[in-house]
Amino acid sequence: MVDLTLEMAEKALKGAQAKARELGAPMAVAVIDEGGNLVLLAKQDGAGFLTPDIARAKAFAAAAFRRPTKVMAENYQSNPLFWSSLAAVQPGRLLPGTGAVPILRGGRIIGAIGCSGGTGEQDHVCAEAGAVAMGG
Amino acid sequence: MVDLTLEMAEKALKGAQAKARELGAPMAVAVIDEGGNLVLLAKQDGAGFLTPDIARAKAFAAAAFRRPTKVMAENYQSNPLFWSSLAAVQPGRLLPGTGAVPILRGGRIIGAIGCSGGTGEQDHVCAEAGAVAMGG
Amino acid sequence: MVDLTLEMAEKALKGAQAKARELGAPMAVAVIDEGGNLVLLAKQDGAGFLTPDIARAKAFAAAAFRRPTKVMAENYQSNPLFWSSLAAVQPGRLLPGTGAVPILRGGRIIGAIGCSGGTGEQDHVCAEAGAVAMGG
Amino acid sequence: MVDLTLEMAEKALKGAQAKARELGAPMAVAVIDEGGNLVLLAKQDGAGFLTPDIARAKAFAAAAFRRPTKVMAENYQSNPLFWSSLAAVQPGRLLPGTGAVPILRGGRIIGAIGCSGGTGEQDHVCAEAGAVAMGG
Repeated sequence: MVDLTLEMAEKALKGAQAKARELGAPMAVAVIDEGGNLVLLAKQDGAGFLTPDIARAKAFAAAAFRRPTKVMAENYQSNPLFWSSLAAVQPGRLLPGTGAVPILRGGRIIGAIGCSGGTGEQDHVCAEAGAVAMGG
Repeated sequence: MVDLTLEMAEKALKGAQAKARELGAPMAVAVIDEGGNLVLLAKQDGAGFLTPDIARAKAFAAAAFRRPTKVMAENYQSNPLFWSSLAAVQPGRLLPGTGAVPILRGGRIIGAIGCSGGTGEQDHVCAEAGAVAMGG
Repeated sequence: MVDLTLEMAEKALKGAQAKARELGAPMAVAVIDEGGNLVLLAKQDGAGFLTPDIARAKAFAAAAFRRPTKVMAENYQSNPLFWSSLAAVQPGRLLPGTGAVPILRGGRIIGAIGCSGGTGEQDHVCAEAGAVAMGG
Repeated sequence: MVDLTLEMAEKALKGAQAKARELGAPMAVAVIDEGGNLVLLAKQDGAGFLTPDIARAKAFAAAAFRRPTKVMAENYQSNPLFWSSLAAVQPGRLLPGTGAVPILRGGRIIGAIGCSGGTGEQDHVCAEAGAVAMGG
């Protein structure tokens, strides 16, 4: 078993931040471990004050459901009661919104990365760039 | 960088209150700073007892997302789960509803003003009147 | 029956703010009505970002128990379980701390004023100055 | 007025992390701005999963009360009810515990740094090392 270390998280963070700079969209980037707990969170200058909490809660959703939050969107619409009730299971920790992807290592999910500050699509692209930068 | 002072907030409050009197819709008006923290909140006689908290939480949403809450409305409808879940991230602080706008100074957002007590459209008009009165 | 109007609250606020300036201790001042609901809240420049919430929650305690929060202090020590449980009855709304007094009109309590930003004693003196300024 | 940038926060983080390594006590370190909002948070390998939230909430307390949380300790003991009730005012955001200090720049408080993972005293020493490393 491989734990998501701070060193790995830093690589993912840098990858996501570089992509955000490229897009001109300052972001908060959160990296959590497979237990859903925070390892690293940084807000770039110019990103809104709520973006760190949003980035983290999106990453939590990606880790909990083991897929990019982007692909959960269809499911939200067909199961609204499930998802709205789910948000109350651990209040404030889970946010179903595009912009977070799992982090893999050797085919196994060891955490997730979430971004907030741009459009949903920009957030998703940055999260993916972070996961790739970690070399999963 | 410019801080939102109490004096600026008082100007915004007076502008919003004058518009509310003109509309015949007593309101609560809240002014918060760029970090989402309260600077000034006043409830006009006749406005309901929950309006101060609603005004404040709408202003929080406008400051966090840096746009009038009115223009977020389409997004609410396409992403209801995101918004309902988001409300739990900082419990009781954020309310996505028409009636709040950012406050600008020199092109930069330094806070937000939120109103509650009338229809959504009346709340929005009063918030805008407040922002204009501050001369941003 | 007399309601606490916004005009009365403004007088109380000004009285408390003047005393705070005299003491050189910038403060948040909150005025609530007899139902415990907010009428007016203002944070002077230089007061901390949490002072508005503290001022309000102290005023709530003074209104609920119909006495200055300062004189509740002995009771806290003899009934710790009561008071700590009480804080959970309306979570975050009630704060037992020196710095708030009831507002009277014709011998009847119609609200309360709470201050935060100085020492407990400074907060208390400003709250009293506010109540006096309202001419209760 | 000076904003706490991510670059400043990174310097503070590195200073605190270096001290934590020296002490052999892996820690979470959180840096927040003067409005109480998160800028940077990192958990060193080996620190417990709750340490990031604890570090952040201690930093919030130091920023809100503008002093090291360590010097608040006497006050906790004489006013336990105030502090336990205060924790509910902004739920989950404030933790009164040793291990966080304000960050100064030109004599003005622009944020705070909080640490969690060691003893209270170790946490405090690391937070101070972070503030010093930022060169306030």
